[in-house]
Amino acid sequence: MMNQPSFILIEPQMGENIGAAARAMGNFGLERMRVVNPRDGWPNARAEAMAANAGGILENAQLFGTSSEAMADLTVVYATTARPRDLTKRVLTPEAAASEMRALTSQGEKVGVLFGRERSGLENEDIERAGAIITVPVDPEFPSLNLAQCTLLMGYEWLKVADQTPPETLDPGKDGFAERGDVEHLLNFMQTELEESGFFWPEDKKGSMIVTLRNLYHRLPLTAADLRLIWGATRSLAAKRRSVRR
Amino acid sequence: MMNQPSFILIEPQMGENIGAAARAMGNFGLERMRVVNPRDGWPNARAEAMAANAGGILENAQLFGTSSEAMADLTVVYATTARPRDLTKRVLTPEAAASEMRALTSQGEKVGVLFGRERSGLENEDIERAGAIITVPVDPEFPSLNLAQCTLLMGYEWLKVADQTPPETLDPGKDGFAERGDVEHLLNFMQTELEESGFFWPEDKKGSMIVTLRNLYHRLPLTAADLRLIWGATRSLAAKRRSVRR
Repeated sequence: MMNQPSFILIEPQMGENIGAAARAMGNFGLERMRVVNPRDGWPNARAEAMAANAGGILENAQLFGTSSEAMADLTVVYATTARPRDLTKRVLTPEAAASEMRALTSQGEKVGVLFGRERSGLENEDIERAGAIITVPVDPEFPSLNLAQCTLLMGYEWLKVADQTPPETLDPGKDGFAERGDVEHLLNFMQTELEESGFFWPEDKKGSMIVTLRNLYHRLPLTAADLRLIWGATRSLAAKRRSVRR
Repeated sequence: MMNQPSFILIEPQMGENIGAAARAMGNFGLERMRVVNPRDGWPNARAEAMAANAGGILENAQLFGTSSEAMADLTVVYATTARPRDLTKRVLTPEAAASEMRALTSQGEKVGVLFGRERSGLENEDIERAGAIITVPVDPEFPSLNLAQCTLLMGYEWLKVADQTPPETLDPGKDGFAERGDVEHLLNFMQTELEESGFFWPEDKKGSMIVTLRNLYHRLPLTAADLRLIWGATRSLAAKRRSVRR
């Protein structure tokens, strides 16, 4: 398995939160959990129920008595917490931290991320031991993030660094996008049918109406299948008009 | 209030999830929730309990009978869902979508984001009505994200677009970082004291030991206060050595 950071939960209280953290880790390809002195003991049935198919992460989780022991073999440790007022330490966004963690793990460093107790967060002695702080930018009026939210955001940014998904895609299906010549062909057909139906009226607006129509169909990202559908629908409407007229 | 997207929850089932969604919205400065046909009626006491201090978002939420009604007055709608196999539609990452939504809302567009039912997600008829799809990149082995997770990630990316937090900061406290001249001064003092204590041994290693020492203290991002602390500690140790020797 590729080298990746350990998520270290310090004295978590509710099993549900431990399970939700495991699930969030699983969503983003993270498998290494460390748990320090969980309030309700270990293993924890509620954590397992909540983790659902990420249960393997809990099974493989390492249990420690103190946060100091949990980070003893690590070389780089981050503490997730609100920006501290009286401690001089690097403060990173989750995005910048994830990027740094990718670089560090790929050069073999053993990286950990500390997540605090549900109510009180990380204590100063945990934050002191970390080399840097990760602070999620939040609305100052609603700043509190819970354990599951915090692990989710860190996992999300971790996967994002390596993720190759382009920002925007549009899959045209098996026939691909329409060729411009076919759009032209459709537009010529439409124009003829619309002309015949009396659509271009008044006469002096005809030119601009045609420009608008042509621009509309060339602007749209139509697939070959879309084009066939529009062609068929246009023909069908025109045929109906002819049969009515007859 | 600045124009911002509405988060539209389609037929949510558990009140807790609606409350968690409200809380996630609040964390990232989003206030407009729409709820379509919630299973357990409206208002929902469990949602309110979970929302905690984001309860105002629930109070102001708009209730609709169908998703079609909930998006009737909107001009741009996104559907959050896994990449669909058989529907040609733009697929955006949360980051790209958030960026686009910022641009659209700032030009006055009324934007909405659809979030699906807990178990079954969005139905095709909801996805059809959206102009584009938002898909969160996840580990293919653990792809399922719940409502609270999905709203959290979208809110997080929404705030991030406008957030001015630098990727990395280091606050040196009120006295600022140490001036290089003061670091030099400390190093000269240290060097003299160490020399006197017999630290630079063997003699032929002295030069490289001094380089290492000087590089160490110049490399570290020391504050003025750190420097005073190191200075004091060095002097104190030197004084102890002298008193022992006497």
